[in-house]
Amino acid sequence: MSADDDRLARVALTWLAEPGTWAVHRLVDEFGPGATLDLLRDGGAPEEGLRAAVAARSREGDARAVADDALARGDRLGARLVTPDDEEWPPQLHHLRTLALPGAVRRVDTETAPPLCFWVRGAWPLREALDRAVSVVGARAATAYGLHVATELGYGLADRDWTVVSGGAFGIDAAAHRGALNAGGLTVAVLACGIDRPYPMGNASLFDRIAEAGLLISEWMPGAEPFRPRFLIRNRVIAAATRGTVLVEAAARSGATQTFNRAVALGRRPMVVPGPVTSAMSVGTHELLREQPSARLVTGVPHVLEEVGSIGADLAPPARAPQRPRDMLDDEATLVLESIPRRGTVDVDRLAARAGVTVRTALRKLSLLEELGMIRRRDGGYALTAPARVPGTT
Amino acid sequence: MSADDDRLARVALTWLAEPGTWAVHRLVDEFGPGATLDLLRDGGAPEEGLRAAVAARSREGDARAVADDALARGDRLGARLVTPDDEEWPPQLHHLRTLALPGAVRRVDTETAPPLCFWVRGAWPLREALDRAVSVVGARAATAYGLHVATELGYGLADRDWTVVSGGAFGIDAAAHRGALNAGGLTVAVLACGIDRPYPMGNASLFDRIAEAGLLISEWMPGAEPFRPRFLIRNRVIAAATRGTVLVEAAARSGATQTFNRAVALGRRPMVVPGPVTSAMSVGTHELLREQPSARLVTGVPHVLEEVGSIGADLAPPARAPQRPRDMLDDEATLVLESIPRRGTVDVDRLAARAGVTVRTALRKLSLLEELGMIRRRDGGYALTAPARVPGTT
Repeated sequence: MSADDDRLARVALTWLAEPGTWAVHRLVDEFGPGATLDLLRDGGAPEEGLRAAVAARSREGDARAVADDALARGDRLGARLVTPDDEEWPPQLHHLRTLALPGAVRRVDTETAPPLCFWVRGAWPLREALDRAVSVVGARAATAYGLHVATELGYGLADRDWTVVSGGAFGIDAAAHRGALNAGGLTVAVLACGIDRPYPMGNASLFDRIAEAGLLISEWMPGAEPFRPRFLIRNRVIAAATRGTVLVEAAARSGATQTFNRAVALGRRPMVVPGPVTSAMSVGTHELLREQPSARLVTGVPHVLEEVGSIGADLAPPARAPQRPRDMLDDEATLVLESIPRRGTVDVDRLAARAGVTVRTALRKLSLLEELGMIRRRDGGYALTAPARVPGTT
Repeated sequence: MSADDDRLARVALTWLAEPGTWAVHRLVDEFGPGATLDLLRDGGAPEEGLRAAVAARSREGDARAVADDALARGDRLGARLVTPDDEEWPPQLHHLRTLALPGAVRRVDTETAPPLCFWVRGAWPLREALDRAVSVVGARAATAYGLHVATELGYGLADRDWTVVSGGAFGIDAAAHRGALNAGGLTVAVLACGIDRPYPMGNASLFDRIAEAGLLISEWMPGAEPFRPRFLIRNRVIAAATRGTVLVEAAARSGATQTFNRAVALGRRPMVVPGPVTSAMSVGTHELLREQPSARLVTGVPHVLEEVGSIGADLAPPARAPQRPRDMLDDEATLVLESIPRRGTVDVDRLAARAGVTVRTALRKLSLLEELGMIRRRDGGYALTAPARVPGTT
């Protein structure tokens, strides 16, 4: 069977059964796409549900003819088909072979086999585009806070030459894509419908920008509709294609957490941006940080790079306030300084007692503090040079 | 030596050396307060720093006379002295005997011995007030967000009969105290100065309310000034007196994290409220959540009670969105429902194929969905009853 037949058969199979179906994947693995297609069309699917689905589809048309039309349509759209036999196939997607989710009960949660093919719009080779990639996902009904954070993440990651992957949805997804585009970087939208009718329509101009500067990809043939189960099936690709998934805002019952759990199951880095505890849009993120032991709290690009970057590169320093003159003082000098009253003066004996140091030490530290202009002698004692200093309270 | 002499000696010792000094604590443990006082006054302190401090203090006055004055002053203020020999001494403070902080270098970080005595203003027996207690601490320069969260925590904990302990500072501390007072609950302010001159003065009316409804307590005698090192010494009491410490807002370099680390070292529950990653006042809290493995993210009172409550009581349920009719559907019915197009109708064969179920299953689920009023038959097919349904995107 020729390579072209194989490609046609792969497309036909995504039409006969939803992408991710394990039974189909296993047959393709064993017999190849063409033989699997013939087997399914002859009613030979090994599971009743799959047999019924194939039978229903077959009454709508001939799978090979439908695939042939789709390939012609793809050509007209300037889209290309990429399969595992192509050089630009991203090798990390093979990890999906290992994805078995404990406790998954719904069909869309268990059908997580690797993709059979991708429709791709955009000039970048898919493999190269996804080589250093992070996904940023989250709520559609995002808050201004979430949109700001997602945009900054998208911008900062793209600025550091990381590809930003997301689902093209309203809210967090769109903000992450936009941030990456604004940085002149690379972004990939993984769709759950045909790449000629990207959903949602309100993001149409965003999708055009992504196709120009990055990639629009989908497992579904041109014209395919965005049925809800398809978003869940699609999410495994977002998780598997990237080194880590950053979740920005999620309500208590959020689909975005599904992508997150896929990332956990695949051994990718699962990251969560916290938010105000008063925001309903952060309830889901905080629950993940509490319940999911591998979830890592991140507050910005440096933390994300710390998780996904190469060993030894880009380690985020712990957050520190800027250096103040007092930071240069040793502990005893600090104690002496902090024991000087805000108003009035103090003599050295009393000061030494307060600071818990010897008089000799106190004198030594006082001359240092005087040198630094922090204190001055007055009325036979020592006083602060600043008119008022508020003691810390904790 | 009589009990009254012991009490006088304890007060004198807090004047000769700062509370928390291990050398003093060990001497008191071995020889009793009176003999320790005599030893120190005779220049017999075992460490040079302590000897110098005692000598400097002794030049200011006679320790016994100072303590005598302080006790008389306390009487006039309506304050009482509580020592470990009193029934109302909180037993959990003995845990401070075990507090050795790894890596501590500054004197105020290493001097963490149990208190010798407390000055107390307020009617409640100290032990009873601190029996079920949580501390809520954080930044002085708090944001509106932090103040809101601290007030809610203070209110909610007091409302559940928990005592709210804090340091009486501006910002988070004051908000937590106020929340507890507003709930008609019990709150304890642990001061780092004399209880007759609580710091900061701007909280004077708050301190009056606390003394009426709860307790103002301090290790320092009436008239003592709030030197900065004293706040750090005081913090060990806030940590040790309570079953857990909740940190609400902390900048990158925050003293509040010191109380938090005390709580960790004492085996108390260390809890952190996250905030917007865009807020400088949450940088310290997020760093703790990242760096301190025992730090627990909490978003409100139920989470706090889950940490400090008795086993089996008050477990916080995972956050969940309210029940929707669709939540009652089984997985196959959900898939069937989600595979019906938003507009127009679909026949059962096609629907079964989309949903990945058999036609028989699809028919069974369709009649259930019809029964529930979610779909209806139309034009020989099935349609949604709701005019529009937006597919999920994730």
